[in-house]
Amino acid sequence: MIKEIKKLGYQPHIMRGVERTVIGAIGDERKNHTLETLVAWPQVERVMPVQKRYKLVSREGHKANSRIKIGKDIVIGGEEFVVMAGPCSVESEKQLMTTAVAVKAAGAKLLRGGAFKPRTSPYEFQGLGEKGLKLLAKARKETGLAVITELLSQDHAEMVAEYADILQIGARNAQNFQLLIAAAKTGRPVLLKRGLSMKVEEWLLAGEYILANNNPNLLFCERGIRTFETYTRNTLDLSTVPIIKQESHCPIVIDPSQGCGRADLVVAMCKGAVAMGADSLLIEVHPNPAEAWSDGAQQVNLEIFGQLMKELKPFAQAAGRTMA
Amino acid sequence: MIKEIKKLGYQPHIMRGVERTVIGAIGDERKNHTLETLVAWPQVERVMPVQKRYKLVSREGHKANSRIKIGKDIVIGGEEFVVMAGPCSVESEKQLMTTAVAVKAAGAKLLRGGAFKPRTSPYEFQGLGEKGLKLLAKARKETGLAVITELLSQDHAEMVAEYADILQIGARNAQNFQLLIAAAKTGRPVLLKRGLSMKVEEWLLAGEYILANNNPNLLFCERGIRTFETYTRNTLDLSTVPIIKQESHCPIVIDPSQGCGRADLVVAMCKGAVAMGADSLLIEVHPNPAEAWSDGAQQVNLEIFGQLMKELKPFAQAAGRTMA
Amino acid sequence: MIKEIKKLGYQPHIMRGVERTVIGAIGDERKNHTLETLVAWPQVERVMPVQKRYKLVSREGHKANSRIKIGKDIVIGGEEFVVMAGPCSVESEKQLMTTAVAVKAAGAKLLRGGAFKPRTSPYEFQGLGEKGLKLLAKARKETGLAVITELLSQDHAEMVAEYADILQIGARNAQNFQLLIAAAKTGRPVLLKRGLSMKVEEWLLAGEYILANNNPNLLFCERGIRTFETYTRNTLDLSTVPIIKQESHCPIVIDPSQGCGRADLVVAMCKGAVAMGADSLLIEVHPNPAEAWSDGAQQVNLEIFGQLMKELKPFAQAAGRTMA
Amino acid sequence: MIKEIKKLGYQPHIMRGVERTVIGAIGDERKNHTLETLVAWPQVERVMPVQKRYKLVSREGHKANSRIKIGKDIVIGGEEFVVMAGPCSVESEKQLMTTAVAVKAAGAKLLRGGAFKPRTSPYEFQGLGEKGLKLLAKARKETGLAVITELLSQDHAEMVAEYADILQIGARNAQNFQLLIAAAKTGRPVLLKRGLSMKVEEWLLAGEYILANNNPNLLFCERGIRTFETYTRNTLDLSTVPIIKQESHCPIVIDPSQGCGRADLVVAMCKGAVAMGADSLLIEVHPNPAEAWSDGAQQVNLEIFGQLMKELKPFAQAAGRTMA
Repeated sequence: MIKEIKKLGYQPHIMRGVERTVIGAIGDERKNHTLETLVAWPQVERVMPVQKRYKLVSREGHKANSRIKIGKDIVIGGEEFVVMAGPCSVESEKQLMTTAVAVKAAGAKLLRGGAFKPRTSPYEFQGLGEKGLKLLAKARKETGLAVITELLSQDHAEMVAEYADILQIGARNAQNFQLLIAAAKTGRPVLLKRGLSMKVEEWLLAGEYILANNNPNLLFCERGIRTFETYTRNTLDLSTVPIIKQESHCPIVIDPSQGCGRADLVVAMCKGAVAMGADSLLIEVHPNPAEAWSDGAQQVNLEIFGQLMKELKPFAQAAGRTMA
Repeated sequence: MIKEIKKLGYQPHIMRGVERTVIGAIGDERKNHTLETLVAWPQVERVMPVQKRYKLVSREGHKANSRIKIGKDIVIGGEEFVVMAGPCSVESEKQLMTTAVAVKAAGAKLLRGGAFKPRTSPYEFQGLGEKGLKLLAKARKETGLAVITELLSQDHAEMVAEYADILQIGARNAQNFQLLIAAAKTGRPVLLKRGLSMKVEEWLLAGEYILANNNPNLLFCERGIRTFETYTRNTLDLSTVPIIKQESHCPIVIDPSQGCGRADLVVAMCKGAVAMGADSLLIEVHPNPAEAWSDGAQQVNLEIFGQLMKELKPFAQAAGRTMA
Repeated sequence: MIKEIKKLGYQPHIMRGVERTVIGAIGDERKNHTLETLVAWPQVERVMPVQKRYKLVSREGHKANSRIKIGKDIVIGGEEFVVMAGPCSVESEKQLMTTAVAVKAAGAKLLRGGAFKPRTSPYEFQGLGEKGLKLLAKARKETGLAVITELLSQDHAEMVAEYADILQIGARNAQNFQLLIAAAKTGRPVLLKRGLSMKVEEWLLAGEYILANNNPNLLFCERGIRTFETYTRNTLDLSTVPIIKQESHCPIVIDPSQGCGRADLVVAMCKGAVAMGADSLLIEVHPNPAEAWSDGAQQVNLEIFGQLMKELKPFAQAAGRTMA
Repeated sequence: MIKEIKKLGYQPHIMRGVERTVIGAIGDERKNHTLETLVAWPQVERVMPVQKRYKLVSREGHKANSRIKIGKDIVIGGEEFVVMAGPCSVESEKQLMTTAVAVKAAGAKLLRGGAFKPRTSPYEFQGLGEKGLKLLAKARKETGLAVITELLSQDHAEMVAEYADILQIGARNAQNFQLLIAAAKTGRPVLLKRGLSMKVEEWLLAGEYILANNNPNLLFCERGIRTFETYTRNTLDLSTVPIIKQESHCPIVIDPSQGCGRADLVVAMCKGAVAMGADSLLIEVHPNPAEAWSDGAQQVNLEIFGQLMKELKPFAQAAGRTMA
């Protein structure tokens, strides 16, 4: 084994116990051949890496919080607590404008809205496409809100980047590395949702694909993981707020709408996220959730959203954040 | 099928679609034979219950919040936000008294401490047993803190109830129904931890065992569920705060120590729980976590605990709660 | 740290890398204070154990397969492939006798049947209790089948052991260590089901409680784990067959009925289990599943069971096993 | 509600119970607006769909097994049990040819090998790209084996289709619908791996994207799901064999290498899959796993593979399948 470890470029170090011998291998797995394969030797029981596999997203090498500048005067990751809100899907000019005006009035800084929708079934509404992007751009012009929308296909990267201030990568594409690279290369800030069953380490490594492709403007977004629980659609893992803060310098955004899949839980989840130190919220808002073309169950109406924004303020203040 | 449904005591109701026929069956499954077994008929594809299976713990029949009185002057589920704190295991008089005095000074109202410990391995420290209970009683006498401790065995129910103000049922015993019944029968308030892979409905039904055995003093305690994530020991599901509030009249307590298994995340999780409307926190505190006999990784020291209690106040206030 | 490790009874061993220093600690965690708590020191990032925590159940120290003798002439873990079958719950003499006679005729060697039932809701049928045990004993007398039944409460250990040839510990009690100890002490063979979210290591350690209490007659039984999938009630993890064979000398039994919760999948799961090297199957069989008092959806009828036994033979043969 | 349901194009049907009223809505959700959003109304507690959401992949409308023809004379889904084998990654001409010749001699019909590799970290080996595809084509020419390889990017669909007999869609891309559509449009047979946390219904719906884009040649491939267990890399869900057979007419392939992530479990898992009725296996084989450039821990060597193929035959025979 000693010979094999040296051959792969590491310096071996032996510790003998009574039942097992542990061999330390000193070297950088990001530069050398991985040692994991040594488990294929019959005398090897386990290979346990001690090195962190991510580097550019890590706080170890970048102590200060990254502040992501969006448009002219929005900063995510700074003192201000920023809210992004809007419908799950862009459905019509009227629906989008009504929502945009209302969320702006309530204090949101970015407008969300899906133009390209990843749908579990081919028979479901797939989004308005570029027409939806144009409506988002129009809403931006009229309200001054910045725009965040999902990028679904590498082929659309340039087009979506033209209309959007932040490119959103959805949970189902969180390890679609070709899409991550295409998004990074547009130069736009990228909001990377956590995959449905993505470990924190894998999420950080997916983020590493953005920074390694020369785009420093990355936001992590927790949106619920898949568990055995069926009361909620997903289990929103709020522990990611302190975890991302600890492991990375990039901002952390919470999506309570996808996170629970139930509008009746959104208000409480938002309060928790703010209190725990999240930098931003991504909230689904619809003028009439019962008639939404997608995910009506998880969208709050305009009135609840307005009320929520008021209720969040004392928590933002207690967390040392300002809020418009 | 119609005949079979009638035979089981329900009133059938037919709806014909193009591909499937739906038969509604009206009746109370808590009084009649379950209908689930009808799926054994080849012509039945699925049986879908619409009735809630819990009753006594449900908010439907008990709109007001239950306020659980502990000792002389503690109430959980009322306006005051109550903190329970103490070591994972009772190890010695000195360790317990040091902790009790410190958590009392910081504002805790109950002292936690395990005398009987459920341990994954038979070779791990199993607790001091009754000697530990006596130390807890002594700490209560000297500090005025009420005591919460785990009940592990039906045979100890009377003994533990003699020393404790709240009986804790651990996650691994959350569906040990014999233990639940024994705990209920002591008449002491019962804190029921959520099992590692317990759905909300199952947790409510386990709680139903307490109330159905004539003990109205039930507290639900979320302590993290088991998921694929390995960064944390468990995934603390804070959505249970609004969910339990919605489904039940019983108080909800959050245990961030077991919940994450990492002391460095405890402070943030506590803030989130308070902001979301939890009634109480159960926090593991140890004078010297690095030398703890069990679960040192998740216990905070006295200094961090004192600081935490101060930091929680503005969040409690924002949530409309008082805190000592 | 070096001092601290020595203080806890281990011999430290240092390896310096560029970004991290790894300290090996040589010693036996089953005899010394656990090292896990060292993570409480700020300079410690992680503690990674290399020692296996189980010992008596481990194949490392006991190379040959354990053969568990049941009654006079049944051996589980030997060349013969043994089938245990019977209803989920004992409901009546007629139901039990009909089933016993039929499964005996089809080649089963043990009769299963629940007399004490752990039920999610307090409003569901809880079993016939001792009356059920007496019916099982009667069926044994009349058919010659050995009997396996669940032990639910430590207080019943002696009573159940009087009637049963194998004591079954259910999934919800798999970490009810008091019950495990009580079961072990009866001296009867113990079948330990895997808990709903129990890792293999935890399952082996729960088994260790049986052997550490001087009962060498342990059988592991996989019955499905809880996952996100909702098509089946649980996910039957057949990889446990080769895993238990590799890690332990104790036999492995598969329960495909609880494992899937769907009778229509039982036949295929049984074939897989036999082919992979399982020692035994535990199958729920009912004369009329649609009228079963519990879990009708997962019980096969007598005809399907008879057919299944015939279909299993060529697979048992291919796996090098005999089958009655 | 009645009015709202009619407005959305369904025919309502009322059933009144004591505590709840159930309204049936008859109509086809694949043609009308979804009813799920009705849960946004305060008086609606739950919406429960009864219709199956998939259609073209469903066995309901296509009773016979689909037989997928690969190259000139391979059929998957017929009487013959077909094995696909080869290295995780194509590394070199020597490595690939050695493997191809050996697996062909042992009875495999298809050669697998990754030319484009999706890697969790941007610092890991990403595959040889088109050079790898050319080596696969060369191996096909020399051995007569058909070729299966992964399609990672929509932009490569045409290129990969030129070299491959089956396009493989990996687990991380199982809901990358743009990639599914691009794969379908090449006209090549598509092997769709199950996503790490994909429910059976979602998997069938992802398959529906292939058939709905006019490509009837779909194979489902189970490769393990993500659970809490850490002994294995994933939990191989063999219940998918009878489930896919029941729900769909498309063949089911089992990948035991990814499924467990441990070469020492592969042999047993293969036997189980064959016994349960799988149509094919996809096995990772490498001449020297300890020096593999990716996933060495899960690849078996040529000798073990040869032995495995011999051991599978009696199980294939017992399952009524022929095997070369």
